[in-house]
Amino acid sequence: MQVSQRAKVAPFEVMQIVEQVTRMRQAGHDVISLCVGEPGGGAPAAVNQLAAQLHGEQADFGYTSTAGLAETRQALAEHYHRRYGVQIPAKNFVMTTGSSGAFQLAFLAAFDAGDVVALARPGYPAYANILRALGLAVVDVATTAEQRFQPTIANLEQVLAEHGRLDGLVVASPNNPTGTMFSAQELQELALWCQAHDVRLISDEIYHGIEFDPQRQGHTSWEFSQTSIVVSSFSKYWGMTGWRLGWMIVPDDLLPAVDALASNLALCAPAPAQRAAVAAFTPQSLEEADARVKEFARTRELVLGSLDKLGIEQAAPADGAFYLYGKLAAEVLDHFGSAIGFCQEVLENAHVALTPGGDFDPFDGHLFMRLSFAAGYERVAEALERVDAFLRRSLAVS
Amino acid sequence: MQVSQRAKVAPFEVMQIVEQVTRMRQAGHDVISLCVGEPGGGAPAAVNQLAAQLHGEQADFGYTSTAGLAETRQALAEHYHRRYGVQIPAKNFVMTTGSSGAFQLAFLAAFDAGDVVALARPGYPAYANILRALGLAVVDVATTAEQRFQPTIANLEQVLAEHGRLDGLVVASPNNPTGTMFSAQELQELALWCQAHDVRLISDEIYHGIEFDPQRQGHTSWEFSQTSIVVSSFSKYWGMTGWRLGWMIVPDDLLPAVDALASNLALCAPAPAQRAAVAAFTPQSLEEADARVKEFARTRELVLGSLDKLGIEQAAPADGAFYLYGKLAAEVLDHFGSAIGFCQEVLENAHVALTPGGDFDPFDGHLFMRLSFAAGYERVAEALERVDAFLRRSLAVS
Repeated sequence: MQVSQRAKVAPFEVMQIVEQVTRMRQAGHDVISLCVGEPGGGAPAAVNQLAAQLHGEQADFGYTSTAGLAETRQALAEHYHRRYGVQIPAKNFVMTTGSSGAFQLAFLAAFDAGDVVALARPGYPAYANILRALGLAVVDVATTAEQRFQPTIANLEQVLAEHGRLDGLVVASPNNPTGTMFSAQELQELALWCQAHDVRLISDEIYHGIEFDPQRQGHTSWEFSQTSIVVSSFSKYWGMTGWRLGWMIVPDDLLPAVDALASNLALCAPAPAQRAAVAAFTPQSLEEADARVKEFARTRELVLGSLDKLGIEQAAPADGAFYLYGKLAAEVLDHFGSAIGFCQEVLENAHVALTPGGDFDPFDGHLFMRLSFAAGYERVAEALERVDAFLRRSLAVS
Repeated sequence: MQVSQRAKVAPFEVMQIVEQVTRMRQAGHDVISLCVGEPGGGAPAAVNQLAAQLHGEQADFGYTSTAGLAETRQALAEHYHRRYGVQIPAKNFVMTTGSSGAFQLAFLAAFDAGDVVALARPGYPAYANILRALGLAVVDVATTAEQRFQPTIANLEQVLAEHGRLDGLVVASPNNPTGTMFSAQELQELALWCQAHDVRLISDEIYHGIEFDPQRQGHTSWEFSQTSIVVSSFSKYWGMTGWRLGWMIVPDDLLPAVDALASNLALCAPAPAQRAAVAAFTPQSLEEADARVKEFARTRELVLGSLDKLGIEQAAPADGAFYLYGKLAAEVLDHFGSAIGFCQEVLENAHVALTPGGDFDPFDGHLFMRLSFAAGYERVAEALERVDAFLRRSLAVS
């Protein structure tokens, strides 16, 4: 499968020397390292004191290796074995600055300028924006509620027929903004189709763990194809958004390219987050995260039972994540003009912030809105009452 | 001055709603935000406990605004006023994921694929590697010790004459690997020449604060041109490498482009680091950092007085940073074949890690080596003795 030409940048050679120093020290040698630009002593005391509280006196927040701390990558490998039953070598895990950092590395390593990458619409807007900023051609695949807003093999065959080529595909399951998921069989068929057609599959699995349909959950694209790139993060299931820590599972053929690019573009992912994240895999942390998912499930039931209060006519099956993506009823659209007008009025008058669909779908988004129910059951319940009351007032007047 | 076409990506609209929510809450409204995908409650307890120790019970490591925390940017603005005597509005500061994150945003916002950017050789290799990965044309400007390895206006005039265009220039003062600096007058002339010629100047000031020549220190390119982009970081002067926190000073004409790109490529810089960094500006923290600079100065004197022990024939004037870039003596090069052979043998036999010059200069780097004296006086002193003893043995044999 293709590795990009632009990934053939020179790795930062000094990082090889750093690794040799590490090996020699492990072999018991007292090596004096004068090869990297890293001041001894770390941060000022006021910052360091906080860091020491965070991780004991041993706190060391210097650069980690470009791919990340060995213990964090090993913890991830064990997590995948427990959660998905797959054995993935720790060497294939690369720690990144959130999933955002992972997408840049994935797109740069896999694609050259002008390559064609398909995306499902509606979808997370940063995919297309990053791809375009890097000079790639984006093909929008319009999807429907019937296909759970996920691309089908028929969609991809059509892209191939229309464009004569397809170099990559980005999918998200659970999806943002719809929360919809592939079944295991759909994901397998898609992954194998991509592998057979030399299409690099990039599987955004950032919402994994927040899944409500037992029939659909618990599958990663790496079960089915080790040529796909998995992107994920500590932001959602573990609630660690601002820490900016994500990871990729990188196919063997892309590992040198990703390492060379990351050593130039990132150096390493944030070290405090990498060290803290090891605590995310303790039974207690997983129990807490799962308890929060149960709370999301309860809130999801409430939201799905209140579509009329939100002015929604039809909603995507929110199999996972914490989003409801709904099409507004005709009378609501008539009254407010569009989802933008609706969301703006609701914010100003009912003090509830919703997201109009335009971020996720430049064509049909003006008919849709996204609601995030991550704020907690009580707050969401109050929001529903506020929007309901405001809608009744507004529609009664008109 | 030019703003890139590719910076015209759609900003993530939901971030506008987030700002409106913030304003409404500041005005006293109880707004329920269902617009972002951010779970309430934050990280698991085990992670959160550490975070709470880091910043008290108020610890909130959710997404910050894309440009960064207001208090951190304000602290930076005050720091520039104290240190450089310039008034820069906090709005022009954008927090980034290390200086690495800043370079990507700067290059994407200012340049389109095919644009021509000049770099001094020797220099930090990631500049060229990031630029090339983004489809830009890099022009190497060979520099000499006589010009302190910094580009001159004569160099730039020559690039213009040879290439017919020049869209950008990246400079670093203090420089890596040479430590050399512009004088205030040189920096001013260069900044004004760039502004007059519509050349976007990107001034890497990451080693600011670690400066040894009183005649040269204490100047930022923003004193002379507010169309230049300043890139800096907490990594070096404050010793916070692994925290991955840097900043840019962004000209007004580029602010919307940088914000739109960052909202897609980064979302925000690491929140724990942004909060911790406020403590970096206390008088005590600055005193500690300055004490470390004094220690660097003492170590620098030791190194500059020991060139013969290192097999160095001629060295760059290390005005700042903590690097010595030296040309190896003819007999050393004869014996070891090149700087690569020399560094490899020194590492294996004397257990001292040095960096051969090839990372910084693909043409003449095989004659040079870089020594980082950030490891501390005692360790550097021991390293000098080890290298000296090894060199005597090696050269006596041949």
